[in-house]
Amino acid sequence: VIRRLCIFGVGLIGGSLARALRKAGAVEEIVGCSRRVEHLEEAQRLGVIDRFDTDPASAVAGADMVVVAVPLGAVRAVLEALRPGLAEEAVITDVGSAKGSVVADVRAVFGTMPPNFVPGHPIAGTEQSGVAASFPELFEHRRVILTPVAETAAEALGRVRDMWARTGAEVVEMSVALHDEVLAATSHLPHLLAFGLVDSLARLQEHQEVFRFAAGGFRDFTRIASSDPVMWRDICLANRDAVLEMLDRFTADLAEMRAAIEAGDGQALLECFQRAKRARDEHVVRREE
Amino acid sequence: VIRRLCIFGVGLIGGSLARALRKAGAVEEIVGCSRRVEHLEEAQRLGVIDRFDTDPASAVAGADMVVVAVPLGAVRAVLEALRPGLAEEAVITDVGSAKGSVVADVRAVFGTMPPNFVPGHPIAGTEQSGVAASFPELFEHRRVILTPVAETAAEALGRVRDMWARTGAEVVEMSVALHDEVLAATSHLPHLLAFGLVDSLARLQEHQEVFRFAAGGFRDFTRIASSDPVMWRDICLANRDAVLEMLDRFTADLAEMRAAIEAGDGQALLECFQRAKRARDEHVVRREE
Repeated sequence: VIRRLCIFGVGLIGGSLARALRKAGAVEEIVGCSRRVEHLEEAQRLGVIDRFDTDPASAVAGADMVVVAVPLGAVRAVLEALRPGLAEEAVITDVGSAKGSVVADVRAVFGTMPPNFVPGHPIAGTEQSGVAASFPELFEHRRVILTPVAETAAEALGRVRDMWARTGAEVVEMSVALHDEVLAATSHLPHLLAFGLVDSLARLQEHQEVFRFAAGGFRDFTRIASSDPVMWRDICLANRDAVLEMLDRFTADLAEMRAAIEAGDGQALLECFQRAKRARDEHVVRREE
Repeated sequence: VIRRLCIFGVGLIGGSLARALRKAGAVEEIVGCSRRVEHLEEAQRLGVIDRFDTDPASAVAGADMVVVAVPLGAVRAVLEALRPGLAEEAVITDVGSAKGSVVADVRAVFGTMPPNFVPGHPIAGTEQSGVAASFPELFEHRRVILTPVAETAAEALGRVRDMWARTGAEVVEMSVALHDEVLAATSHLPHLLAFGLVDSLARLQEHQEVFRFAAGGFRDFTRIASSDPVMWRDICLANRDAVLEMLDRFTADLAEMRAAIEAGDGQALLECFQRAKRARDEHVVRREE
């Protein structure tokens, strides 16, 4: 059991983690910290946190588990601010969608990789954000990826693993580099394409007509374009190298499809569409739908 | 009331139209025609059609309404085959996702645009296909776009309009050119991107890992990549000009986003993401969710 959990950023992820641990009886006290006092007041009013402290260093005092759940662009500043109050035995983890940048931030702030820091990423979320959208079942049957590095202590890793297991998630481990590649492919690039497509269409002269005749397929395809813009700006910048690599591969493949359309090469298009349908039906539909 | 409805291609759309009209009591007899006799047998077994005829010219004999619901690449051959049996007073329409190509096919086959041909397109469907997936409510509260041309007779237009109205759809009219642009933007390009992305990822060495960690956002984003490859090959080729124009706009916008990521220009990314979120929340979410 966690005696005192301190969460930085009590939004969809931080709030849902708090609710899940509380529901599981896995935590005694939850302290929230954020720059936005109105968010903390809301979280307290909703019973998500027991109390809050807007000063990071005093917020972490006495905490045995610290979770940094702020947008990636704010991670370094939060670490700097909480560092003076962090107990040596406290375990600290994060929930960022890119792990290379978090590890770099930690090294920059602490001068080294503290054994008690466990980089983590729950693969869960909706296009909603904010504590009001949080709910205790968010992580049930979802995967949480932990990316320990050479310096990470086995005991700290075990405690973070246990914490996530209590939320109903399946905890897996992989390297920082593989995590960042996999997420660039399945999450970061799709978000970029969805944001980009909607923005492209919104710029069309006839955009009113265009959106008016959008059907269900468009609604599903663009759902992720309703996600939090700040969070996604941070992710694209934090995971820049992997995102650019995946984007370049995709752009090259798209250029091939363009050439096939222009040349009227139905066979090439058909083969591409068939491979895609087969892959999705096999890997995505069977597993989750 | 339609006395004898002849449907070419009794799949998701043709089958659902048959079921909807039957349910509404808007049709007396439904004849199915297809190259695939096993599809017709299935449709008859399911009660979707009353009888079938694999010969197009005899299938349309005595029909007062003919609906061509085959993939766009098969439209011209179907029109050629049914033409000898088509009564002069019969109204004929189609359901193709591109209208310029259908109008060109009709002109090529008939040598002119028959006044009784009404180009049409129901904006409805799922990623499923085949008559087994058809259901009578598919068109309820959906839009059906009719794109009459100068030669189209008002009476024929009215009869096709009435037919769709009986399925619960909202019928609207627009020009062939606007239809093809709007659909390229909201449907054809998104399908191309979804097929392309899944195919890109399937080609990655670590594609097993990649698909294993795909979350709900990816599932929604790629749902349309489970659509029928033949149908979408035909659509991309049939609406080539509009699809290429929209693809080129998108590719240019995507290149701007790439440049912003590479330069670490968070402001440009944020503005793009915010515009996209605002447009989607305003035009797509409010209307349909």
